[in-house]
Amino acid sequence: MKQLGNLMDRIIARINVNLREFQFDAEPLVRRTIPLGRLVKFYAFYGISPRQGFHFRIFRSSLSGSYFLGRCTVDHAVVYKSDIRGDELKAKGDRFHFQGAEIPVCDDENIRIKDACLIKTLVHCYTHDPEILEEFLIQNTVSMHYANIHGSPVEGCFIGPFATVDLTTIHDSVIGAFSYVQAGELSHQNIEPGTVWVHAKDAFDFRYIFSNNVLEKYISLEPGASPRGIFIDFIRDRKMDFQKIFDVVNLKAPISIPRGASLNRYAVVKGDSVIGENVLVAQRACLENAWLGKGANAQENCYIINSRLEGNNVTAHGGKIIHARLGKNVFVGFNAFLRGTPESPLEIGDRCIVMPHTIIDLDEPLKIPEDYVVWGYIRNADDLKTHAASVKRLSRVKKSLTLGAMRFQGSGAGFIEAFKHRIEHILAANGAFFDGKQNKGHAQMGQDLTFNIIHPYGKGPQKGLYPTMDIRP
Amino acid sequence: MKQLGNLMDRIIARINVNLREFQFDAEPLVRRTIPLGRLVKFYAFYGISPRQGFHFRIFRSSLSGSYFLGRCTVDHAVVYKSDIRGDELKAKGDRFHFQGAEIPVCDDENIRIKDACLIKTLVHCYTHDPEILEEFLIQNTVSMHYANIHGSPVEGCFIGPFATVDLTTIHDSVIGAFSYVQAGELSHQNIEPGTVWVHAKDAFDFRYIFSNNVLEKYISLEPGASPRGIFIDFIRDRKMDFQKIFDVVNLKAPISIPRGASLNRYAVVKGDSVIGENVLVAQRACLENAWLGKGANAQENCYIINSRLEGNNVTAHGGKIIHARLGKNVFVGFNAFLRGTPESPLEIGDRCIVMPHTIIDLDEPLKIPEDYVVWGYIRNADDLKTHAASVKRLSRVKKSLTLGAMRFQGSGAGFIEAFKHRIEHILAANGAFFDGKQNKGHAQMGQDLTFNIIHPYGKGPQKGLYPTMDIRP
Repeated sequence: MKQLGNLMDRIIARINVNLREFQFDAEPLVRRTIPLGRLVKFYAFYGISPRQGFHFRIFRSSLSGSYFLGRCTVDHAVVYKSDIRGDELKAKGDRFHFQGAEIPVCDDENIRIKDACLIKTLVHCYTHDPEILEEFLIQNTVSMHYANIHGSPVEGCFIGPFATVDLTTIHDSVIGAFSYVQAGELSHQNIEPGTVWVHAKDAFDFRYIFSNNVLEKYISLEPGASPRGIFIDFIRDRKMDFQKIFDVVNLKAPISIPRGASLNRYAVVKGDSVIGENVLVAQRACLENAWLGKGANAQENCYIINSRLEGNNVTAHGGKIIHARLGKNVFVGFNAFLRGTPESPLEIGDRCIVMPHTIIDLDEPLKIPEDYVVWGYIRNADDLKTHAASVKRLSRVKKSLTLGAMRFQGSGAGFIEAFKHRIEHILAANGAFFDGKQNKGHAQMGQDLTFNIIHPYGKGPQKGLYPTMDIRP
Repeated sequence: MKQLGNLMDRIIARINVNLREFQFDAEPLVRRTIPLGRLVKFYAFYGISPRQGFHFRIFRSSLSGSYFLGRCTVDHAVVYKSDIRGDELKAKGDRFHFQGAEIPVCDDENIRIKDACLIKTLVHCYTHDPEILEEFLIQNTVSMHYANIHGSPVEGCFIGPFATVDLTTIHDSVIGAFSYVQAGELSHQNIEPGTVWVHAKDAFDFRYIFSNNVLEKYISLEPGASPRGIFIDFIRDRKMDFQKIFDVVNLKAPISIPRGASLNRYAVVKGDSVIGENVLVAQRACLENAWLGKGANAQENCYIINSRLEGNNVTAHGGKIIHARLGKNVFVGFNAFLRGTPESPLEIGDRCIVMPHTIIDLDEPLKIPEDYVVWGYIRNADDLKTHAASVKRLSRVKKSLTLGAMRFQGSGAGFIEAFKHRIEHILAANGAFFDGKQNKGHAQMGQDLTFNIIHPYGKGPQKGLYPTMDIRP
């Protein structure tokens, strides 16, 4: 396993150079978290689709337990139980629209992961950086458990557990645990843990910071230890459900799949679960007594338990919904944690927007009315007063709004408009509007996937590394 | 599945051109046997070893259910449930000895399968043709169920079910069902079904031909139908045992594996089976209540059932041993079928040589003494008189010996010498003589294998074809 050790040294050294201004040291954060022996235990898998371009190249890397789709190059990297989804990459000849300009895409876009260590990370979508449209680069970077790297090229970054970088090009920055950043471009920043920040230049700025008390309880990261807290416990308690689906090569769907819907064979489905037409259930999603109405989607790392979603719902990467009823067109953002109980269920009205990284953890029943935006940390109806606003109210904001720890500046209408537009795009991309012929999305295309299962060297100095590989259509 | 259909057309057209002098038509033999839909059902698997070179390249091919190891290129071919073992290929810098000359090997040898259809075929070893040492080519060829292509480059050939081509370069020839040919070089020949022919130029010639009655009973092939007979029934009855081992990704050994032994994870082990030190059990081997003594090997497609093998036994590719006790150093050749019953067990003494393609199917107990060579079709002690000779007797033959349907010409001592030499080589190559440090063979190296599992396109015009792939160290 000597060469795998050398590879980890190389990655840690590189990120430490990039983050030297913060005296950052990745060593004690990474070493303890993934002992090298673990990297030999799990296979990687690569999805082959007849409908979309793919090209998979790896060199001198470890891919233990990771899922790949689309065009990806992995070079001197450790990718551990991560999901690398290249099914929305740009193709040669596409036109990219940016602030009124139309930029031609010169090559098929490729996700390139180089000198990086990704732990249980979700990488998806494509670079929104008009400066390099053809390469979605993740370099000299460490990302921790259940981080999301979404449409965000990152170089020289440390991304903490449950943190999300969304539609943002980031250089030499630290993104703290459970922080969400959507800011277009970011450089040499140290984002404190628990920061939820949505920023559109000259348009709007939304910012909320979780208190240290809350973070300590739900997710915290200390040098020399693995991340801990309620989020980690929650996932660990459900870990065994995934064992079976990884043990077998081909798995028949445990429930019936209606027209236009798809259930990834690496998803868990338990109890009395039902999925409707045009529903997408992605790999590593977990459904238990879940009822998903037409056009709903359950993305990677999401858990939907003892809950009913009426239709056209988005449950973004890492979203968790327990003991809840969600109306139509409810959006639940990245890594949101919505936990009701049988005694204290959660109800969310139609068209609500649950901001990314929202925690709703109830000790009394809670009902959120239709057309509301919610954020932050909510335990009861009282918390809702400072952690929610109606779409109408927000849309009227012209300059600023402060509510509890949330500070909004700029155009509320622009903010709402941007969100609504994106939700519509996500539903369309996932196939919610498929009519049997037109408007195909991931739900319809996902039905055609087959998987290649890739193992590392089992012995010798290369133990844990994967052979060099090139897979093309 | 259009492209897969085109590929089959291409292969059939090519072999028919090569075999036009015989008015041969592969079409009705191949079409019925593997309906295209079957080629989508099974995955292929590729063994990765840290100890030996590997390089796997495929283009525009279907590999359904096939096993690959070592350096292989598959190009416009259909390889169905076949075993392609490149673990004894020559390496760059090796010296090849041929009739006193020493020829340098200029490149790493590669198995190349091009415009060929292999059905449940075993391909192993390396080319013995001094004219091309670096490429083991199988081209414009169809081989049928349980054929063995062993160290034999073949071009423009049809190889019938349970036929074996061994250490022979063959052009534009038909090898009938259950024929065994070991002849160095062969061109434009039509070998009748059931011919067992061992020929060394200017040294010896062994020939036996099974009667049509026997062939009809055990294995026959008619245009428009799949092969049928006792051999096919025997395998079909045990097919389900293999299901489980192909369904799971990683499989723990079902019995304890002593020092220096290896049990391939794609082998079946049932009942009260025991394997000794330095035993090799290859993929697709099947053990049931089998006792294998130190240094015995069970090669691909062999079945050892309710039997005891004392040690240093070779059970070559496709050999079947049922209700039998074999002494030490007994050799059982390719596709031999040795079937005792509880009432009529078979006993074979030390150092016996069971010729390839021998059928022993008992209706009374039979004991074969030590140091005997047996061949042909044996049902009882009476048959033995014309289907066996002691090593001593054969060694004394200077010119010829005719016994029943067997005709031997040339040097009996040379024939025995060549066989003994080869058996010794097979035991050494398989690791029978490993002492804990020295004399490593496949049994010891096989312990380090990991497997990649490869799926075809599941839908669309390319359905059943595999993506282009290149896997290197």
